[in-house]
Amino acid sequence: MSSSSLICELARQFYDLGWVTGTGGGLCIREGERVIIAPSGVQKERMTPEQMFTLAMDGTVLERPADPKLKPSECSSLFLTAIRLRNAGAVIHTHSMHAMLATLLFESEFVISEIEMIKGIQGMGYHDRLIVPIIENTARESELAESLQAAIEAYPETQAVLVRRHGVYVWGRDWVHAKTQTECYDYLFRAAVEMRHLGIPTDATKGASDAGISSRPAGQYARR
Amino acid sequence: MSSSSLICELARQFYDLGWVTGTGGGLCIREGERVIIAPSGVQKERMTPEQMFTLAMDGTVLERPADPKLKPSECSSLFLTAIRLRNAGAVIHTHSMHAMLATLLFESEFVISEIEMIKGIQGMGYHDRLIVPIIENTARESELAESLQAAIEAYPETQAVLVRRHGVYVWGRDWVHAKTQTECYDYLFRAAVEMRHLGIPTDATKGASDAGISSRPAGQYARR
Amino acid sequence: MSSSSLICELARQFYDLGWVTGTGGGLCIREGERVIIAPSGVQKERMTPEQMFTLAMDGTVLERPADPKLKPSECSSLFLTAIRLRNAGAVIHTHSMHAMLATLLFESEFVISEIEMIKGIQGMGYHDRLIVPIIENTARESELAESLQAAIEAYPETQAVLVRRHGVYVWGRDWVHAKTQTECYDYLFRAAVEMRHLGIPTDATKGASDAGISSRPAGQYARR
Amino acid sequence: MSSSSLICELARQFYDLGWVTGTGGGLCIREGERVIIAPSGVQKERMTPEQMFTLAMDGTVLERPADPKLKPSECSSLFLTAIRLRNAGAVIHTHSMHAMLATLLFESEFVISEIEMIKGIQGMGYHDRLIVPIIENTARESELAESLQAAIEAYPETQAVLVRRHGVYVWGRDWVHAKTQTECYDYLFRAAVEMRHLGIPTDATKGASDAGISSRPAGQYARR
Repeated sequence: MSSSSLICELARQFYDLGWVTGTGGGLCIREGERVIIAPSGVQKERMTPEQMFTLAMDGTVLERPADPKLKPSECSSLFLTAIRLRNAGAVIHTHSMHAMLATLLFESEFVISEIEMIKGIQGMGYHDRLIVPIIENTARESELAESLQAAIEAYPETQAVLVRRHGVYVWGRDWVHAKTQTECYDYLFRAAVEMRHLGIPTDATKGASDAGISSRPAGQYARR
Repeated sequence: MSSSSLICELARQFYDLGWVTGTGGGLCIREGERVIIAPSGVQKERMTPEQMFTLAMDGTVLERPADPKLKPSECSSLFLTAIRLRNAGAVIHTHSMHAMLATLLFESEFVISEIEMIKGIQGMGYHDRLIVPIIENTARESELAESLQAAIEAYPETQAVLVRRHGVYVWGRDWVHAKTQTECYDYLFRAAVEMRHLGIPTDATKGASDAGISSRPAGQYARR
Repeated sequence: MSSSSLICELARQFYDLGWVTGTGGGLCIREGERVIIAPSGVQKERMTPEQMFTLAMDGTVLERPADPKLKPSECSSLFLTAIRLRNAGAVIHTHSMHAMLATLLFESEFVISEIEMIKGIQGMGYHDRLIVPIIENTARESELAESLQAAIEAYPETQAVLVRRHGVYVWGRDWVHAKTQTECYDYLFRAAVEMRHLGIPTDATKGASDAGISSRPAGQYARR
Repeated sequence: MSSSSLICELARQFYDLGWVTGTGGGLCIREGERVIIAPSGVQKERMTPEQMFTLAMDGTVLERPADPKLKPSECSSLFLTAIRLRNAGAVIHTHSMHAMLATLLFESEFVISEIEMIKGIQGMGYHDRLIVPIIENTARESELAESLQAAIEAYPETQAVLVRRHGVYVWGRDWVHAKTQTECYDYLFRAAVEMRHLGIPTDATKGASDAGISSRPAGQYARR
């Protein structure tokens, strides 16, 4: 299957998961030095391969769809940032309710530990604390690229960056890796919300200190 | 695809989203000066194109299905109100649980701010306060048309009107716009309910003043 | 489509709604003086028309599947009770989580008012109080028939009976009516649970008196 | 249908239920003295029959897929433990959110009583207390086999074992039995979480003593 067709198929699956409704969210797949990327502002569950753009690693448009009204995804610069800094083969951006709500429960870092699904994140074991940096949202998605880059550089092992009141960016070495990691993160974000409802700390390594956002340390971008 | 077929396809999708169960909810699509509209009281996920009505802008039935038992949707006068006042190309009415519950949390206006999905609503940016007027429900759907008209006139920028303990009407310049806006609103209604559960204010611009329905200002139809 | 095929198709749909998992729940469709009914203890989303039974109104098996291991649904006597007492054309039994949880919130009657979906129940308007009797569960499903009959007789207008810690029986004049009423009831059961979480009374006609099961009047089978 | 094809079909269904996302979870089906088992670390909703392994009862690989990168599921030793000790025909392992959350609400035993779905578990009636042992999670799935065996031996009637902060293992005499029991358990785990939110004890036989994890008796592996 071509990367263009695969993007359309995955986007339909992500729509059913509630990750890309309202034209929000998106994904890209890298082919060597080319990046296949969806257009901006279209229904993600109804895209066709003919609507895809091909970008160079610096963002130059190499191929574009015939429809002159289409523009590359607003996420393009963020996708390319993750690809360049992490050599990612695919990047996924979701507006999942679980991701969005998770950003409301923590100050600068989402932290969870001792949940089996943590093992689905590259380099992480069951007893490791999973930390996902949270960056502040901006008025335009393209303006996020700078703070995304800062977060990726400050957290060299992270596979994802949360955006406050917005959603999450997740990458991987190829589309399978990016997708399965996104599923694990989404499970963990949902688990954190459910655990908060039940009064159970998300970070088993430090007791009850995540009881509220006001008790969180503020040191954004602090290294683990 | 004809508008009749499209209505059937979209209604199946809306059923899966929980928006039109129990024969509730509906949608219409405008073709110039004609409005294609579904029948009343049928299973929305099992409609066929032959069951559609065609109405003139004043509600006159131009074409009707062969089955004499079918009547145009009870929502017809409400749909036509939104079309006439806003030049809408499509109108969607859902009984989404999220929309219904959202009307229980606010007095006369649903208010939310600083959630990325707000950007999916026409004319709105991330830092804008999204306001959706809430009108009181009536015994018959057709009786709602007058208060819907008043709300649309009082809130000239709104793309939607909530109906207390009932659901929501959303419109757009065409079916894609109406549908994607409905998805964004539904996400925001759900977010508001989830944020209430977590004790987080929905209106980030004014702190904790949305703690309960009793603390809301009552000025229905006040201009923003 | 034959009633046997329709039962299989509807059961798949009900499975996706979470109504008939774990072989629980079921449905029957009446054809004149014959009742087509599914077998007991099978996966409801994988039934085939050849597995259906045909019963007479008194429960006599008129036709049975070739597979000798199959037995008629445990619900058969309850289905036939609703058919005989209400002249129902179809009966649906679900183990929906929403129905089960709703029985934990009320003593002998589920009560809700002023929710639009109430209008989907036969004979009910928006301002009517919808009452669904709740009967106590028994060790075997077939033993429920007597108390189901008592509840149907005590509540001559009800279209459904809840079974404590178990689920709900809903009927209608035909399969469409039974199914759409089940959807409306299920929405209302879910709404009641969500409203309880939000601290909102389900019965708008009497204020906050449904704050807890201990404050409910106990008069089981009292007439409305 | 071959067992290999059936495993793929069931895995797609389990993915839609949220049981096997992020490559987590899995299942196996026994054919006499051979066990068909899925590979480790693959997307469970996209498996093909050619990717399956065939193991002997002692874990020896009898047949393997052509792709040299594939390894048998990490769950293999746990699956074989359940098969040997209980003569199971199929074993299912899920990371269902409901199962994971249920392990956070109880100390060493999940206990629920008087819920109709309990009757879907082998040997259980409506008035029986359903007890599922909870074992502690370990860093590697294969290390769990020893404590799984201890739990199965200590609870000779159980059809499932929960793993803390992880998920559940369920077996049955064949794939239908294993699957339908997993559906019943999942419903009961979800019910327990919802009941906790509503302040309703899960164990109707002993009143409010399940109000919090700190009040639970600690006697892990105690006989019922």
